[in-house]
Amino acid sequence: MDCKIVTIPGDGIGPEIVREACKVLDRVGEVYGHKFNYTEILMGGCSIDAYGVPLTEEALNTAKQSDAVLLGAVGGNVGNSRWYDVAPNLRPEAGLLAIRKGLNLFANIRPAYLYKELAEACPLKKEIIGDGFDMVIMRELTGGLYFGERHTEEVDGCLQATDTLTYNEKEIRRIAVKAFDIAMKRRKSVISVDKANVLDSSRLWRKVVEEVAKDYPEVTLSHMLVDNCAMQLVMNPGQFDVILTENMFGDILSDEASMITGSIGMLSSASLNETKFGLYEPSHGSAPDIAGKDIANPIATILSAAMMLRYSFDLDEEADAIEKAVQKVLTDGYRTADIMADGCKKVGTTEMGDLVAENI
Amino acid sequence: MDCKIVTIPGDGIGPEIVREACKVLDRVGEVYGHKFNYTEILMGGCSIDAYGVPLTEEALNTAKQSDAVLLGAVGGNVGNSRWYDVAPNLRPEAGLLAIRKGLNLFANIRPAYLYKELAEACPLKKEIIGDGFDMVIMRELTGGLYFGERHTEEVDGCLQATDTLTYNEKEIRRIAVKAFDIAMKRRKSVISVDKANVLDSSRLWRKVVEEVAKDYPEVTLSHMLVDNCAMQLVMNPGQFDVILTENMFGDILSDEASMITGSIGMLSSASLNETKFGLYEPSHGSAPDIAGKDIANPIATILSAAMMLRYSFDLDEEADAIEKAVQKVLTDGYRTADIMADGCKKVGTTEMGDLVAENI
Ligand SMILES: CC(C)[C@H](C(=O)O)[C@@H](O)C(=O)O
Ligand SMILES: CC(C)[C@H](C(=O)O)[C@@H](O)C(=O)O
Repeated sequence: MDCKIVTIPGDGIGPEIVREACKVLDRVGEVYGHKFNYTEILMGGCSIDAYGVPLTEEALNTAKQSDAVLLGAVGGNVGNSRWYDVAPNLRPEAGLLAIRKGLNLFANIRPAYLYKELAEACPLKKEIIGDGFDMVIMRELTGGLYFGERHTEEVDGCLQATDTLTYNEKEIRRIAVKAFDIAMKRRKSVISVDKANVLDSSRLWRKVVEEVAKDYPEVTLSHMLVDNCAMQLVMNPGQFDVILTENMFGDILSDEASMITGSIGMLSSASLNETKFGLYEPSHGSAPDIAGKDIANPIATILSAAMMLRYSFDLDEEADAIEKAVQKVLTDGYRTADIMADGCKKVGTTEMGDLVAENI
Repeated sequence: MDCKIVTIPGDGIGPEIVREACKVLDRVGEVYGHKFNYTEILMGGCSIDAYGVPLTEEALNTAKQSDAVLLGAVGGNVGNSRWYDVAPNLRPEAGLLAIRKGLNLFANIRPAYLYKELAEACPLKKEIIGDGFDMVIMRELTGGLYFGERHTEEVDGCLQATDTLTYNEKEIRRIAVKAFDIAMKRRKSVISVDKANVLDSSRLWRKVVEEVAKDYPEVTLSHMLVDNCAMQLVMNPGQFDVILTENMFGDILSDEASMITGSIGMLSSASLNETKFGLYEPSHGSAPDIAGKDIANPIATILSAAMMLRYSFDLDEEADAIEKAVQKVLTDGYRTADIMADGCKKVGTTEMGDLVAENI
């Protein structure tokens, strides 16, 4: 198979981890007889530095013409940063928002599971972890507060800022369908998360999700309020199989969910549209503080490449091979700094990539 | 002192826990020579049953004429319930939203701390808990998505629902001032939480919070994105002193924060306006499944009554007395079912109230 992949190394540790993922993909290509052709584009802070904007039209078009996109990370120092007072469309993350919208990537799949080998790093107690947990957050990615009309105006001498949260039936239906489809391949349970006791958009959300559920009689659907879900994730993560939620709630809950695994450096994600096309990226950020030191964990990106093979190229066997190789490397006791534990062998970014590739 | 208190027993376990809090207040009255006069009003499901609305104008006016309000809990079965498809203004929680807005209770203070005696119940590992944590969430309570314009309309044959998130400088300034004031009495650190990399309202939030910070040179201010905060609460709760945030983020984060204490039945809250007036309620919900069984934990409500003495009546000594009595009862090993542990003595709602009262 010939695969046209656009890579977006991005900022911070992005270039290092994408390099390792491509190394693993190339090894898969050798073993299974595929050809992965990469075209690199700039996005985020590096694009701002080069072109003054976080994503050029040309870069977006290049991405559109590919079969799939592999992304490292963009932005950095955002929490306390020089970026927030910059015009929103000139911030590095604006590139990410633009590519999501531009490629219509409405379905963001974020798996969060506990690696038995890494259970030590999990912040939750053994009693809470129980038999472990393995959930997928299906986050709507092109609607809601992220893409609603927004403006800041002066009213009676006082600045006032407004953001808008809008969802229509179609947008809710298509993401719900994706969630139920995934649930069918898993433990057949969907928990839809909203704030239906307050928001109109959440009440429409519930209504449509319940309609979609009728087409999946085997799947159990329940609803949970977002505040309760934030509690339940900490108290009883094992109850979740597929969480279906809107954009902003998904942003918050998926970060919480990934943190309770204790291995955010291990978690992949996929953002899909209605076709086979997808953008694949680690769940973690650009970690500018450790960039260029060859210590970042490339596994999340490597596993994102596996998701790419599975969802965009239907190469299930090859995806399995990557996942098994990662598992093998962990079992053999190799760890990057973020997941290092007593008795394990510490390796850097490059070495971790080599090890996974060798195990394909 | 003569204090005019409106009580709102509400739904579920509400009546039982408010009864115990009043018992403790009465004991304080006896010992310190105050008179607490109670007027009861209906709110929530019980008001819907009696009057067809979750809060009558008359009840709201009665509350307005009091010095402070003590609330049990309203609603129940909301997660998966018969309520969400009811017109929003006819749901039990609409009473809560109406009283918050009607009394202008913009500042919601939710303490979340780890009781050393109850550390066993905390879902987080010892390594994460470290020396414990003690934070206060200052949540804006009368703005944002909760009170913005909302509507559902048909667009091209497709239903579309919209909610609006608006904040103006004045609303942000007054809640920020409350947060910095509280920080001055604590560890002098404010972490303001927003989503400034996406929302206009969050960028205005940051700007105003930074302006307010200039008046508090002793307080350290930092900013954190809401998704990161949801992670940090699980990974390193000890870093938080005062969290300042808007309404919806505060709803989600305060529930997460209270859950990581492992003692949600112990956490009080206060909702204040610009005057001494306040509404005090436990952080937990109405727990309809255990209502009427004399097993609910009344401590959160008792501690809310202590907050009332402190914030609305300036009775610091009396508030301290309640807090010490609660501490004593815990040290003596008494526990309600929700916080029961090996070697402790299990007591019901009424007995727990008696014990705290006896220790005043
Ligand atoms: C960088 C930011 C805009 C983005 C988001 O909020 O979606 C990130 O937090 C994520 O979750 O992918
Ligand atoms: C009942 C509900 C409307 C309310 C809220 O969302 O504010 C509750 O969750 C709370 O936190 O007090």
